[in-house]
Amino acid sequence: MAAVSFYKSDLKEMEFTLFEQFRLAELFAAPPYDQFSEEDARMILKEAHHFAQEVIGPTMGETDRQGCELTPEGVKVPQAIHDLWRRFYENGWNALELSESAGGQGAPRLLGVAVTEMMSGANTAFHMYLGLSLAAAAVLRAFGTPDQRELYAGKMEDGTWGGTMVLTEPQAGSDVGLSLTKATPNGNGSYLISGSKIFISGGDHDLTENIVHLVLARIEGAPKGTRGLSLFLIPKIRVNADGSLGESNDVTCTHIEHKLGIHASATAALTFGENGKCVGYLLGGEPTRGGTPGEGMRKMFVMMNGVRIGVAVQSLGVASTAYLNALAYARTRLQGAHMTKGRGEKGAVPIIEHSDVRRMLMEMKAIVEGCRALIFHAVRLHDRARMLAEGEERAALEDDFDLYIPLAKAHVSDMAVNVASTALQVYGGAGYTGDYPAEQYLRDSRIFPIYEGTNGIQAMDLVGRKLSQNQGAAVGRFGKELQQLVKTLGGRAGYESEAATLAAAGDKFNAVLEQFLEQSLKGGMEQVALSATPFLHAMAQIAIARLLLEGALIAEDALAKVDEGSQDGQFYRGKIAAARYYARNILPPALSSLDVVLAGDTSALDIPEGGFSLAY
Amino acid sequence: MAAVSFYKSDLKEMEFTLFEQFRLAELFAAPPYDQFSEEDARMILKEAHHFAQEVIGPTMGETDRQGCELTPEGVKVPQAIHDLWRRFYENGWNALELSESAGGQGAPRLLGVAVTEMMSGANTAFHMYLGLSLAAAAVLRAFGTPDQRELYAGKMEDGTWGGTMVLTEPQAGSDVGLSLTKATPNGNGSYLISGSKIFISGGDHDLTENIVHLVLARIEGAPKGTRGLSLFLIPKIRVNADGSLGESNDVTCTHIEHKLGIHASATAALTFGENGKCVGYLLGGEPTRGGTPGEGMRKMFVMMNGVRIGVAVQSLGVASTAYLNALAYARTRLQGAHMTKGRGEKGAVPIIEHSDVRRMLMEMKAIVEGCRALIFHAVRLHDRARMLAEGEERAALEDDFDLYIPLAKAHVSDMAVNVASTALQVYGGAGYTGDYPAEQYLRDSRIFPIYEGTNGIQAMDLVGRKLSQNQGAAVGRFGKELQQLVKTLGGRAGYESEAATLAAAGDKFNAVLEQFLEQSLKGGMEQVALSATPFLHAMAQIAIARLLLEGALIAEDALAKVDEGSQDGQFYRGKIAAARYYARNILPPALSSLDVVLAGDTSALDIPEGGFSLAY
Repeated sequence: MAAVSFYKSDLKEMEFTLFEQFRLAELFAAPPYDQFSEEDARMILKEAHHFAQEVIGPTMGETDRQGCELTPEGVKVPQAIHDLWRRFYENGWNALELSESAGGQGAPRLLGVAVTEMMSGANTAFHMYLGLSLAAAAVLRAFGTPDQRELYAGKMEDGTWGGTMVLTEPQAGSDVGLSLTKATPNGNGSYLISGSKIFISGGDHDLTENIVHLVLARIEGAPKGTRGLSLFLIPKIRVNADGSLGESNDVTCTHIEHKLGIHASATAALTFGENGKCVGYLLGGEPTRGGTPGEGMRKMFVMMNGVRIGVAVQSLGVASTAYLNALAYARTRLQGAHMTKGRGEKGAVPIIEHSDVRRMLMEMKAIVEGCRALIFHAVRLHDRARMLAEGEERAALEDDFDLYIPLAKAHVSDMAVNVASTALQVYGGAGYTGDYPAEQYLRDSRIFPIYEGTNGIQAMDLVGRKLSQNQGAAVGRFGKELQQLVKTLGGRAGYESEAATLAAAGDKFNAVLEQFLEQSLKGGMEQVALSATPFLHAMAQIAIARLLLEGALIAEDALAKVDEGSQDGQFYRGKIAAARYYARNILPPALSSLDVVLAGDTSALDIPEGGFSLAY
Repeated sequence: MAAVSFYKSDLKEMEFTLFEQFRLAELFAAPPYDQFSEEDARMILKEAHHFAQEVIGPTMGETDRQGCELTPEGVKVPQAIHDLWRRFYENGWNALELSESAGGQGAPRLLGVAVTEMMSGANTAFHMYLGLSLAAAAVLRAFGTPDQRELYAGKMEDGTWGGTMVLTEPQAGSDVGLSLTKATPNGNGSYLISGSKIFISGGDHDLTENIVHLVLARIEGAPKGTRGLSLFLIPKIRVNADGSLGESNDVTCTHIEHKLGIHASATAALTFGENGKCVGYLLGGEPTRGGTPGEGMRKMFVMMNGVRIGVAVQSLGVASTAYLNALAYARTRLQGAHMTKGRGEKGAVPIIEHSDVRRMLMEMKAIVEGCRALIFHAVRLHDRARMLAEGEERAALEDDFDLYIPLAKAHVSDMAVNVASTALQVYGGAGYTGDYPAEQYLRDSRIFPIYEGTNGIQAMDLVGRKLSQNQGAAVGRFGKELQQLVKTLGGRAGYESEAATLAAAGDKFNAVLEQFLEQSLKGGMEQVALSATPFLHAMAQIAIARLLLEGALIAEDALAKVDEGSQDGQFYRGKIAAARYYARNILPPALSSLDVVLAGDTSALDIPEGGFSLAY
């Protein structure tokens, strides 16, 4: 029996956001993206949509139930993941964002994230294997020596080999600087690696003959902390100079985690050099040949930034399909009477007719579409930067993109969990069972706020680093763009309340920035840190309100040209309704949480430790 | 190897709330509770704490992994559940709340919920079997004929037999009135039952030889809808007049659900009368002998009200142990440097030293203790009512209790999911694995907002029924009690901001009540319903802020008598900090959501259906 695909995506909404709001076609006007046309992009989206819905989607439940197994020969992943892996590379999806110089199509990331939203949303666990492999390959392209690129990168890009990022140790989670994994020079340019690492997504599997690990380790004598860490390339199987596989490289998978979700993604514990035979290579080669040891974290962060946006996209993918599944259920499940119109001829109305269900659907729609706008807006900054030569304008776009990374990672991942939970609620008891995908969406999504830097770390990255980068230039532009929209809305009948709330948002936002600055100058970083998470979410919600309202104005213009009751008319009215709902229902509590920050309550810092509880 | 108990409870905090804040001993001053003393109660709590922590706790993870199995002989539950079942009844815990006339101890429910919080929190799935059995027995006591009570109730109360409540059918979930299960008079006082029911917790199991089902069914010719439903007593095995077991009663378990959580609790689908041989008895006997058919829902609601408070207590139990486990982890897990004090001598500080972790802990503590206060306050109203003769004062207390039922069920259950999720986040990646209990708490808790009336149904019960009961007398008292506290706080130095926020809360709350009334009079019930859920949570949060602040004032007085740094001193400072945190951090966004209700946005009602998405 063929499995059912629960995967749902809304191509119409994605196309609106890509083409009408974020004008993807403008990116095709100049290098490096001028080999694409709008027509190409629409066709790619359609094919990705088909692949996600028809090919990947049916595997989600089954591969989750099967999970991964650690055998004496290593980790076995479900057969369906093997099939998908093969078809993904056969169909050339790996080439989409790969640069033309590496044999790829070099698509803008704005197009890439739209494709990834669908593929990842259809089976998150499956997509992690290839997403992380391609991300690792990109780091190798960026920092590897010509030899390393030649020997490893191509095979990691075409699916012959897998790739991973390896940071965490049992005693070194968010605090990577505590890592103990050691690298001892062999004297021939290579290093002997020894140490144990955990929580490595795709750390072992049987999808490929070899896996290339990018591993943070400390060269003997290097300083403590993160600045003493170097990034090593460590293949699972050694690779001969001609690219053929040699002997095993003494990398052992000792354990895979039993997790709440993403069961089909193997989360491995690896021991490097159990028998003293694990050879690693400094990424970028030996110090004397141009590489720089001790810059491991910097290199890892190039990967990490991409992966953090990747988590935001995963989150969006799950949130969107969770919403659309709940919507489909609400349209067909008959229960109860409409409040004023009665039961109708079927004896009960579809539950979408009930106010409270509509509220949940509207909340999910506004959040999902808002998160999509947030991510698309952010990666468009990245793409626009890549269209420019080095210089001030490009640097500003890069800074703006950097500012959005923690917002996107932390806010969208938290929202994915919320939306998945709300979607489950729409089903009632049925949602708690394995008969519907809602429970898996909740389980799968719950890792997003944790991995690739917990959301608390993202919040500290935002308030401790990103806000003050270049004397706060990026956050200054953020505020100005908000003011600009307030002005535009002020001249638009029917948006008075939205303009007023956004104006208040700008004022409170600036007041918090000032307070943070004052607190920092007075050594009150603990207080700033206490407000970091609420501030991050409020800032993301302000950004989203702005982007949804900008989308609503575009939709208003488009609506004027079509019949209100037509398909297009309903669509545009939906965009307008979502923006209004967000500005009128979600933004005000966000502003209230800025008021809370401004009030500066420190109970959580002042409480004596025993006050949390005397029970130990 | 003996399994570890992850269960944690805070007896000190429970005793403060029970004895210092809610003056449990006052209830022991008069019948029906005057057989108890404070000393008894403290001993019972201590024993319950021990039983939960040492006996029940170690079974939680194991019974979850084993789950239930449907075999040709019926449902098998894990062996550990059998052992617990036996020990629970052997130790006489079933007698605690049972009336003295039924051979029980007749404890006030305020003591009962404290005991249940611990027992249920230690293994939710286990506790459901006995909790529902005892609740079903109570309905039988209330509405059964003397014969029915004689034959069934005692055995359901002493654990010889199980009991269930059976409402849901595939096409009749929240809309119970759509039930199709039929009852045909046999002419001898019994009925032939035929129909299929789903989602029956403990609907089949091998803990007891017999299970007594209380089933909603429609007598042939009875009207459509809920008013046509009668409540039937249907044993799994027929019971002879002498109490011995007879032949099978044609009740078949056809399926058990594969669920997100509470795996050790069998959720059964039952078919009644597959072979035309299922006999049921009208609860309370034949109409001609005093019973009233068509009052099934009213009788079921007596059980339902108790069970809804039960869900609140389950929710509290999970939330509390989730918080305390996260707290214990945060106290021992070493990661990172303190913002101003550095890394300390261990090279890293316990993560409780980090502001963002402290924020999460404080949030959980304030919510957990607030939810405990909400439930204890509510059931104390019930107990006080039982101490009075019929009359106005008693009726008022009963109405007040009724008002709190939807608040407690919906708010505490939603908070349990939130707290479980926050607790998981404190662990980082470890929380996502089965090595810690956080992921199970999240899975188990996610059913609480759904069963025994979804939280959307609770919100409609609140705004559509409870607010207007007796011309709004209960909600009027709610408002007055709030004003009283505002006045008290006004005279207390250091609580100016709390007093101001509470005063604003009272004003906004009253404004919303007026708006609801106006909208209802104008036929705008759809709009009232749209605001029902946000209003419910805001009202619960206002109630909690009030109760926590009242607790803080008690703690202030107690603190004045002890050394601030002593254990007691730290405890009281913790109570004060939690109340302040709640009033300053959680209450303001709740008020903002009342502002949102007052602003009356109707985007969610106005959006055309296609506007939710054109993807079907």
